[in-house]
Amino acid sequence: MKKLSHLDRSGKARMVDVSRKTATTREAVARGMIFMKKATLALIMDNQVAKGDAIGTARIAGIMAAKKTPGLIPLCHPLQISSVSIDFDFDRNKGRIAIESRVRVTGQTGVEMEALTAVSVAALTIYDMCKAVDKEMVISDIMLIKKTGGKSGPFLRP
Amino acid sequence: MKKLSHLDRSGKARMVDVSRKTATTREAVARGMIFMKKATLALIMDNQVAKGDAIGTARIAGIMAAKKTPGLIPLCHPLQISSVSIDFDFDRNKGRIAIESRVRVTGQTGVEMEALTAVSVAALTIYDMCKAVDKEMVISDIMLIKKTGGKSGPFLRP
Amino acid sequence: MKKLSHLDRSGKARMVDVSRKTATTREAVARGMIFMKKATLALIMDNQVAKGDAIGTARIAGIMAAKKTPGLIPLCHPLQISSVSIDFDFDRNKGRIAIESRVRVTGQTGVEMEALTAVSVAALTIYDMCKAVDKEMVISDIMLIKKTGGKSGPFLRP
Amino acid sequence: MKKLSHLDRSGKARMVDVSRKTATTREAVARGMIFMKKATLALIMDNQVAKGDAIGTARIAGIMAAKKTPGLIPLCHPLQISSVSIDFDFDRNKGRIAIESRVRVTGQTGVEMEALTAVSVAALTIYDMCKAVDKEMVISDIMLIKKTGGKSGPFLRP
Amino acid sequence: MKKLSHLDRSGKARMVDVSRKTATTREAVARGMIFMKKATLALIMDNQVAKGDAIGTARIAGIMAAKKTPGLIPLCHPLQISSVSIDFDFDRNKGRIAIESRVRVTGQTGVEMEALTAVSVAALTIYDMCKAVDKEMVISDIMLIKKTGGKSGPFLRP
Amino acid sequence: MKKLSHLDRSGKARMVDVSRKTATTREAVARGMIFMKKATLALIMDNQVAKGDAIGTARIAGIMAAKKTPGLIPLCHPLQISSVSIDFDFDRNKGRIAIESRVRVTGQTGVEMEALTAVSVAALTIYDMCKAVDKEMVISDIMLIKKTGGKSGPFLRP
Repeated sequence: MKKLSHLDRSGKARMVDVSRKTATTREAVARGMIFMKKATLALIMDNQVAKGDAIGTARIAGIMAAKKTPGLIPLCHPLQISSVSIDFDFDRNKGRIAIESRVRVTGQTGVEMEALTAVSVAALTIYDMCKAVDKEMVISDIMLIKKTGGKSGPFLRP
Repeated sequence: MKKLSHLDRSGKARMVDVSRKTATTREAVARGMIFMKKATLALIMDNQVAKGDAIGTARIAGIMAAKKTPGLIPLCHPLQISSVSIDFDFDRNKGRIAIESRVRVTGQTGVEMEALTAVSVAALTIYDMCKAVDKEMVISDIMLIKKTGGKSGPFLRP
Repeated sequence: MKKLSHLDRSGKARMVDVSRKTATTREAVARGMIFMKKATLALIMDNQVAKGDAIGTARIAGIMAAKKTPGLIPLCHPLQISSVSIDFDFDRNKGRIAIESRVRVTGQTGVEMEALTAVSVAALTIYDMCKAVDKEMVISDIMLIKKTGGKSGPFLRP
Repeated sequence: MKKLSHLDRSGKARMVDVSRKTATTREAVARGMIFMKKATLALIMDNQVAKGDAIGTARIAGIMAAKKTPGLIPLCHPLQISSVSIDFDFDRNKGRIAIESRVRVTGQTGVEMEALTAVSVAALTIYDMCKAVDKEMVISDIMLIKKTGGKSGPFLRP
Repeated sequence: MKKLSHLDRSGKARMVDVSRKTATTREAVARGMIFMKKATLALIMDNQVAKGDAIGTARIAGIMAAKKTPGLIPLCHPLQISSVSIDFDFDRNKGRIAIESRVRVTGQTGVEMEALTAVSVAALTIYDMCKAVDKEMVISDIMLIKKTGGKSGPFLRP
Repeated sequence: MKKLSHLDRSGKARMVDVSRKTATTREAVARGMIFMKKATLALIMDNQVAKGDAIGTARIAGIMAAKKTPGLIPLCHPLQISSVSIDFDFDRNKGRIAIESRVRVTGQTGVEMEALTAVSVAALTIYDMCKAVDKEMVISDIMLIKKTGGKSGPFLRP
């Protein structure tokens, strides 16, 4: 029967012991969306055209957040991330920015949380920069897309 | 014509000057969802019944994240938050946990980002604790519900 | 009947709302001890005589820890500390260093936790620097000595 | 003759070079106490019975503090902790909570400081949550109980 | 006779008490340079032309560093910064980027350190991004240009 | 043709992938200067004679900053530093303090940024402690002196 690995037998929180796991190269890809008014998205895209910093700021925030993950998520293991990249895709008609992060590590545990945190903080940063003109933005569909490396085998979102 | 306040005339990022804004009491309420398999939610709810730490851990992670917001979101102002609380609501049939945060401050700028960050990190923490049994969870519908205080007047999500 | 202020009616953790409290000047004094072998204390005192960094390092660690308190103690409010000082007193016969911190703030809540955290981290830093020669050191008697300012009135440890 | 390893020949602070030490699995166990009025302890234990967050909050604070150790203790090495767990034991008659932490790592240096920091911050968190009803609590007897792994051999507190 | 304000009478470090100082609006402007091979500067300027992230990344790093100043500089007071902006100026012939930061606060102490830290970290970030092609870059001439607000009166670098 | 490694083909920032690089022992030495009025330097040197904390504080700030480097420099990899030491050299006639840091690691990437950050923050800390008596200090000549280990071979500043 399945159980929550971060809780001991009595249900108390703990950081799971990974000391016997093998250090392998692991990768995780996560994705998320932020929906906004079309006029708000237009302001961001115009800023891009004008070589502005809007999306670049969200990218840096996401990359830095990946490194802060073990300080944010209480039971996450500290890891020496090998790489992080974040891509943005714009859908002008739907007023939507898709955010995708890719994180790699050589370590005893995976980087799903790092990838999901990078996407979340990149989305929150876009919210912050646009909130003066649009408070109704919605951050949605944050999910793990892919995970490779480690004993449990690859995961690919169906 | 509207523009993105966190960018200067040439589109470069900056932390907006709030030095002439009045320090008033401000509040923000944010909400978000995490969707999972019913069996996963059952594990969390069983842990609650057994006085376990699962939801308590997510709550603490969210509260601490509210305080870390200016370190995560590049152009956010540092603030001395007056209070943070986070509530969880479970829908066993939909496999859904709703998370609501409420943040208050007496300051020169609002706490929308703190409230949204608290919800996001609480949701990520739930993901972390359940990911060994369910990698397909989705974090969604993170949005600002209400905002009061400050010159721009109250906001209530329609 | 008394209750724990950091827990709501249902016993859940929250950051207490201080938004209606008056900002006043508040001070807290805390104290603690670290006990060690006399030979270990002699090494520290010899380092002092030689203008070394041992106690200075513990002092800086304690001062910086006071500033980190809201990041360490989950339900602590962020505060703009006005001053921190830390003093050390050596008792060569008892193999004991007494550590006293004094923290001041103008704010809506007190700085007891900042003062106690400063003492704790200063003591841990001494432990760290001496642990290669003495693993049996004991940190003890960390307590609040005095607290002034705020509505609840002054506290002086009996 | 023994000397303080964190100080160079002239007594100046440095982070000791561990680059030639072998990465082995290391464990440390630390313990500490917090003493309080019996009525204060009763409030905490009632909260436990009511499935509240008091002790869970202290546990999470301690686990997160273990990860923050190299940012708190100036000469501590950054480490990728493999696991942390914290247990609490209540003595209603003595008004005493005993806190025990266990930290594991595969690395070039030990985790004594992580274990001691976890205990200290868990105790400070209990102080914070109870200080509105009891300012005379005392944190005491923080000590290393056990240490295994590494060249210097095991340590077991006599 | 003048003395170092951050040291007490016996020469020990302390965080100076600012609790009796008036909270006023204060501003600081700092400047610094990074010198590099002309070919290195050309790569950065080409990236700008191509709407790349190089300078934007350095700007965000500098703004975020201003907020981290009290965590970096041991005796600095925590402050709620009101604004930060950073500008870059390129001299293609001299292989030089000039960096200027401007920081504002309403508080009991000034923001010189925040402005100087922002410039330093922006310069270090440029070094980091270019070090694969040019290890001989030099960061120089970091200085305070202007300071206004506070009891000691305005400072303007001669 | 050379290009900036921290930018992808389209010029966007990323954390470079080091997952295929071999973990080797690497060392970096950096240096920097802070220039001040002779009277200011005399105050620092008098403090040293009096066994004061001025230079010790700057040393600790620099060592701790080395550990914070990946949190400051957006595209820097987190690393488990093996050692850090910082030396100061005084030139009373020139009103100049030279700062030299030496950082070692066993890892997949080098520690140039850690060494440069340590020097920068040590210099900023000296500025902070002396700014009440001398606002015209200048931090200069921060540069990499030496780098060993890693595939690209040793670097020695000409």
